[in-house]
Amino acid sequence: MDSFHPPLRTLMGPGPSDIHLRIREAMSRPAIGHLDPAFIAMMDEVKEGLRAVFRTKNALTFPVSAPGSAGMEICFVNLVEPGDKVIICQNGAFGGRMQENVERCGGVPIVVACEWGAPIDVEQVDDICRQNQDAKILAFVHAETSTGVRANAAALCALARAHHMLSIVDAVTSLGGSPVDVDAWGADAVYSGTQKCLSCTPGLSPVTFSAQAIEKVRTRKTKVQSWFLDLNLLLGYWEGDAKNKNKNKKTRAYHHTAPINALYGLHESLVMLHEEGLDNAIARHTKMHNVLKAGLDAMGLQFLVAEEHRLPQLNSILIPDGVQDADVRTRLLQDFNLEIGAGLGPLTGKIWRIGVMGHSARFENITLCLSALETTLAAMQAPITPGKALAAAQAAYQDAYTA
Amino acid sequence: MDSFHPPLRTLMGPGPSDIHLRIREAMSRPAIGHLDPAFIAMMDEVKEGLRAVFRTKNALTFPVSAPGSAGMEICFVNLVEPGDKVIICQNGAFGGRMQENVERCGGVPIVVACEWGAPIDVEQVDDICRQNQDAKILAFVHAETSTGVRANAAALCALARAHHMLSIVDAVTSLGGSPVDVDAWGADAVYSGTQKCLSCTPGLSPVTFSAQAIEKVRTRKTKVQSWFLDLNLLLGYWEGDAKNKNKNKKTRAYHHTAPINALYGLHESLVMLHEEGLDNAIARHTKMHNVLKAGLDAMGLQFLVAEEHRLPQLNSILIPDGVQDADVRTRLLQDFNLEIGAGLGPLTGKIWRIGVMGHSARFENITLCLSALETTLAAMQAPITPGKALAAAQAAYQDAYTA
Repeated sequence: MDSFHPPLRTLMGPGPSDIHLRIREAMSRPAIGHLDPAFIAMMDEVKEGLRAVFRTKNALTFPVSAPGSAGMEICFVNLVEPGDKVIICQNGAFGGRMQENVERCGGVPIVVACEWGAPIDVEQVDDICRQNQDAKILAFVHAETSTGVRANAAALCALARAHHMLSIVDAVTSLGGSPVDVDAWGADAVYSGTQKCLSCTPGLSPVTFSAQAIEKVRTRKTKVQSWFLDLNLLLGYWEGDAKNKNKNKKTRAYHHTAPINALYGLHESLVMLHEEGLDNAIARHTKMHNVLKAGLDAMGLQFLVAEEHRLPQLNSILIPDGVQDADVRTRLLQDFNLEIGAGLGPLTGKIWRIGVMGHSARFENITLCLSALETTLAAMQAPITPGKALAAAQAAYQDAYTA
Repeated sequence: MDSFHPPLRTLMGPGPSDIHLRIREAMSRPAIGHLDPAFIAMMDEVKEGLRAVFRTKNALTFPVSAPGSAGMEICFVNLVEPGDKVIICQNGAFGGRMQENVERCGGVPIVVACEWGAPIDVEQVDDICRQNQDAKILAFVHAETSTGVRANAAALCALARAHHMLSIVDAVTSLGGSPVDVDAWGADAVYSGTQKCLSCTPGLSPVTFSAQAIEKVRTRKTKVQSWFLDLNLLLGYWEGDAKNKNKNKKTRAYHHTAPINALYGLHESLVMLHEEGLDNAIARHTKMHNVLKAGLDAMGLQFLVAEEHRLPQLNSILIPDGVQDADVRTRLLQDFNLEIGAGLGPLTGKIWRIGVMGHSARFENITLCLSALETTLAAMQAPITPGKALAAAQAAYQDAYTA
């Protein structure tokens, strides 16, 4: 068993995305205790930085010490009680996972099924809400990572409010790459991941909860089924003792040992986002998407999702006829050190997912991706139009600068 | 918001322990995808390395992508079904947390209460097992981090077998610092943490499950209440598709995005442990404990735990009369950059916990700890004997070399 030296990949799958050297260096700094005053001060900055990215004033905004799937679970186990009806919009893999979560909490899922690759039909959801006035929660995925579809989060959160339901929103792939307007939407529980548009290491899940959501947690009739994810306990660590009003002498109750070095990384990624400006970062994702799109269009490749519903950071491309999914991805990885993503569930073997996220959303990555994909497909005699992608990307690059 | 540069602490609390530069550098390496063949090969080495430390042949041995408290929870949510009786030995904070876990799974906890700081009474547990022949599980903490007491794990696991119960063992503080003999004990589910005697970053929880434990999970009547921690699903990622028999072409089912950089760190810490040799590492923890103990004894400080039940890596010291707990720890942190731990629960303000774990278990750390503690206590005119600790430590150091 020898030390592991990873190959140097360019990560353009559905996450993790490339991690900037500043963030990797931050993670390599010496550990300090999770109750050290210096660490607690850093935690407060992480919370403040996350509030800025979530565009919220929610006091309870923090990173869960586990990946995005635990972020999803913390929302459901805290807000769903046995017997609670939960309306779930399902147009991809992660809507399906929400259903699993509701069932495992003893809730009653009411599924609004939409086609994978199509957007959530807000009117259809409104109908279901009208038919289920006793439902407690409306849950949906803002940025479906399995398809690249964006949901109309503002409309769906407004629907939830109108029907006196809480909303649970999956913003794993959107946070930092598309506007996530928690307060403007009136969203109640939102979870994300750090390994997508925040370009940090995987393993943390930023979450934010509205006052209404906290009220629901505090007035539950049953205990939260997970000790690790019980917000009533986590509040003692992330918020300090509520009985202690002296802000400079907050006491923190020990709950679990926080992942110190990963949090150093998240802190640095939030500093970098602050330096760039959230609006600029979001605009950058769109610019890079446009350059990628110009090249893919010129090659004659088709997108799964209609243009108006596409996420800039997650591009689902139909695999051309006669081309073997895995053969292409293996060549890209072996010959170009480039990772793109496979399809999930019913889209396995039918699409590739090209991520343009965080530090991966750079012109050099897009150029590599277009060149490598064209070279590989041309070598396989796939039905594409070769020789035009780079010129099209160059024109889109020009547009991005004059815009 | 500026980049965070942590103070350079010496960590001698109950964890995290100091992280060796090699491990911190490993964590700063560029990320690759969690389904990349190079990453999967590394995962296989991590599993093999963990089997060596757990001294087990258990196929299902892997690091949970979350801290030790999630490691505890993965054992209980998978093995306990509603109505199952679980006998819990409780002689510290973590036995209490086990009870919380059982209750939240709908299980029926039967608590064998022992004094905090005292060992688990095996005969008492045997009596309780005889009175509860229908109990399904016996759970106990091998190394109680809240007190520094070692349990007789071999005897307790044997009891569980004799009474046809599964055993769940907390080895968070013991793994890598004391012998954890999973196969020799016949333990069924064992969880640990990476931030103690493995000296890696917090945020991962190594676990191992026996064939009997897996059989129980596979034949459950109810779904595991946590999606994130469901072993039936995690098997697909960590073990590959059971239907695919070709070992070189294992397919891995996507479950969640693994914490790539933290796993680089764990891999490196296992490489380092392999280089040192597990037996040598365990012996080193005992040597360092003896040096620390010699110094503390010479100062006239008392241990909470009787000598024969002490863990070398977690030393609970009674706070001398008239000395304010927090004042001392604040001085140690501010003036010596040294972290030691506070007491938990009923031992708050009554003990300090001095960790001698992993990379923190070095002579230079022990020397600093003894000097700083003596200097601080002497300055506060605490009732100790000053001026003798270093000479006593030197004699013990000499003994360690001649042994």
